[in-house]
Amino acid sequence: MGQRPITFLRQVVALCTYPNLLDSPSFPEDAKKRARRILQDCGGNSLGSYSASQGINCIREDVAAYIERRDGGVPADPDNIYLTTGASDGITTILKILVSGGGKSRTGVMIPIPQYPLYSAVISELNAIQVNYYLDEENCWALYVNELRRSLNEAKAYCNPKVLCIINPGNPTGQVQSRKCIEDVIHFAWEEKLFLLADEVYQDNVYSEGCQFHSFKKILYEMGPEYYNNVELASFHSTSKGYMGECGYRGGYMEVINLHPEIKGQLVKLLSVRICPPVSGQAAMDIVVNPPVPGEESYSQFIKEKESVLNNLAKKAKLTEDMFNTVPGINCNPLQGALYAFPRIFIPSKAIEEAKAHKMAPDMFYCMKLLEETGICVVPGSGFGQREGTYHFRMTVLPPVEKLKILLEKLKDFHIKFLEKYA
Amino acid sequence: MGQRPITFLRQVVALCTYPNLLDSPSFPEDAKKRARRILQDCGGNSLGSYSASQGINCIREDVAAYIERRDGGVPADPDNIYLTTGASDGITTILKILVSGGGKSRTGVMIPIPQYPLYSAVISELNAIQVNYYLDEENCWALYVNELRRSLNEAKAYCNPKVLCIINPGNPTGQVQSRKCIEDVIHFAWEEKLFLLADEVYQDNVYSEGCQFHSFKKILYEMGPEYYNNVELASFHSTSKGYMGECGYRGGYMEVINLHPEIKGQLVKLLSVRICPPVSGQAAMDIVVNPPVPGEESYSQFIKEKESVLNNLAKKAKLTEDMFNTVPGINCNPLQGALYAFPRIFIPSKAIEEAKAHKMAPDMFYCMKLLEETGICVVPGSGFGQREGTYHFRMTVLPPVEKLKILLEKLKDFHIKFLEKYA
Repeated sequence: MGQRPITFLRQVVALCTYPNLLDSPSFPEDAKKRARRILQDCGGNSLGSYSASQGINCIREDVAAYIERRDGGVPADPDNIYLTTGASDGITTILKILVSGGGKSRTGVMIPIPQYPLYSAVISELNAIQVNYYLDEENCWALYVNELRRSLNEAKAYCNPKVLCIINPGNPTGQVQSRKCIEDVIHFAWEEKLFLLADEVYQDNVYSEGCQFHSFKKILYEMGPEYYNNVELASFHSTSKGYMGECGYRGGYMEVINLHPEIKGQLVKLLSVRICPPVSGQAAMDIVVNPPVPGEESYSQFIKEKESVLNNLAKKAKLTEDMFNTVPGINCNPLQGALYAFPRIFIPSKAIEEAKAHKMAPDMFYCMKLLEETGICVVPGSGFGQREGTYHFRMTVLPPVEKLKILLEKLKDFHIKFLEKYA
Repeated sequence: MGQRPITFLRQVVALCTYPNLLDSPSFPEDAKKRARRILQDCGGNSLGSYSASQGINCIREDVAAYIERRDGGVPADPDNIYLTTGASDGITTILKILVSGGGKSRTGVMIPIPQYPLYSAVISELNAIQVNYYLDEENCWALYVNELRRSLNEAKAYCNPKVLCIINPGNPTGQVQSRKCIEDVIHFAWEEKLFLLADEVYQDNVYSEGCQFHSFKKILYEMGPEYYNNVELASFHSTSKGYMGECGYRGGYMEVINLHPEIKGQLVKLLSVRICPPVSGQAAMDIVVNPPVPGEESYSQFIKEKESVLNNLAKKAKLTEDMFNTVPGINCNPLQGALYAFPRIFIPSKAIEEAKAHKMAPDMFYCMKLLEETGICVVPGSGFGQREGTYHFRMTVLPPVEKLKILLEKLKDFHIKFLEKYA
């Protein structure tokens, strides 16, 4: 999509990969310093050695220090940090350890609808029960505790709900949760003794005025010891999103607090089956949590690159939202954060009938037509879940601005013709 | 353990990581050529992009070409190649897709004893049934079909055995299977309609005179179409062993043949949940299957480094075997391949009693004493499985020769004192 890698991150990973480069004058000293620090904590000073299953020590320390800075001093313990193969691996592993039982005691896992399909896939793989709670599209995809309570109470009749998954900023919905919302969710989890799973991989991707990322960990801490000492919480981050976009490195971490020591033992055992996360991905994660600071040689370039990506994304998010809302039959909530638009589309009943005749979900039918007629590929809302009778698609805002404009124009033309055709 | 990385592999991965280096005169042209080829097949020419879940196209092509060369021209289809996060990930995924059912129809998975504990861990995680067949220690850990048949027939009474796992060269046992043995196993799998899972990650690690690695795929092909068109086979390889030892990159592949197209669809679906294997690991795998060839600039250094590692390992394997067999109460089969010795140790009955008093397996007790008294850490045989009443430990032959000699001397002294103490 034309987004360039962050130079500093790649420099450090290249130095770690081929340490002969540590003598090269074409690499900055601060990158060399980072690389030496990582290598000294690797077996044989090499990215090629297995690391501990939980991840390289100094990187877990850097993650803990990052969390403390991010959360205004709320303490973070490196021992609660687990480096993972992207966030997906962490989410899968935590769910694996929480799911158990059969029949009515099968574990229920509460997930938002719309959701990111990793959740439904893993829940199904683990033979757990997917318990849906709906985000409120009319209120910018807000999460209300009434809806959590409805969902939980209904689920108790047929399973044992133990986990509450939150995605903030939202994927595919792009909302950023308010402080009040997070407090309500934490209180609810505390009351109902639910394990909180906070997918916070878009924590750097917040664009709208007045919106701010609040970590569940920070709010939990600020709510006082009754909450902080009791609510079990896992939070996830990744190298794949933010301003880095280093998806291929499969870097990530999770912070898990208040886990019972015995369960923690089981978690480490489970992690050790897959031996260790990719060490180059661990190194990439280190740079995300330990970037250049003011006074360091690479700082100005780093900040320039980082802000360029984030400002660009903010611009594209606004452009996409504005454009969609000029199209009759498309309604798009503000893209407050993350990397996606999830507009609601009106699909005429004639098109719904034709979709049924093709044994396709109406929004899948719409997306296939869009693909065939324009070459634009978006994902139908039915892949993420949506309220019965509503239709959406998910689109990333990643293409370069000029391309995105053309794409949105084409999409608009397609939609208008689609409405006409099936009127 | 002092083993140096293969320069060429690291050069290519560094070039892929930080493509500015493609202009640097300090990297050889053949490494640049490899890096450009990999990058042109990466999204946005970047290791940071997600790849297809099955892995990067050109790397799967290189894997197929490697297999064809290795197997003397037996055809390999890139479409049957799946790049994985180390071999562990491939083995786990294949087992996941093969395991099903409950009660008496629970899937049985046949594994060698001694085994590599990944198998027992995954079988237990998947709620499948571990079906043990014993390797014959008296005959250099050979595998006999009679024993497979005994094991299978007994298992049929309580589960549905569907998978036969083979580790060749053996981990932890270090034997290299003969052509005859492999033919017998394939015939047995064909007869019993078992899915063959061939863990061949030590295919480059063969040391003994007269021993040779034969891939299951090659022998299957040579047994004719009745076998080749029917036996389902998955074979695994990795960047972590051989002469590369690049464990931290979590690179690997599997070749899966005769998989039913519907099951293949499910496999790709399952793989896509974890999105893609680490792309830098995929790049490292590429160099393992597509190393410098005669005439290329890096060839002589590559061959020198490769042979130095392998000759060294062969020397250390022989040294270890010879040394162990001079110690009263230790018997060690020839280390034909892989990276381990798995000697049988005599533990006196007084020591067994003391172990029981400490609620420890006798070989665990032995290994803990060894660790406490010498600082040497080896893994008790009970972690791998062994015939009732026999005791072993697993030790790698990776330490540098001089260190290994000291280590073996210390181990010898410890063992003799241990025998005296508990006589």
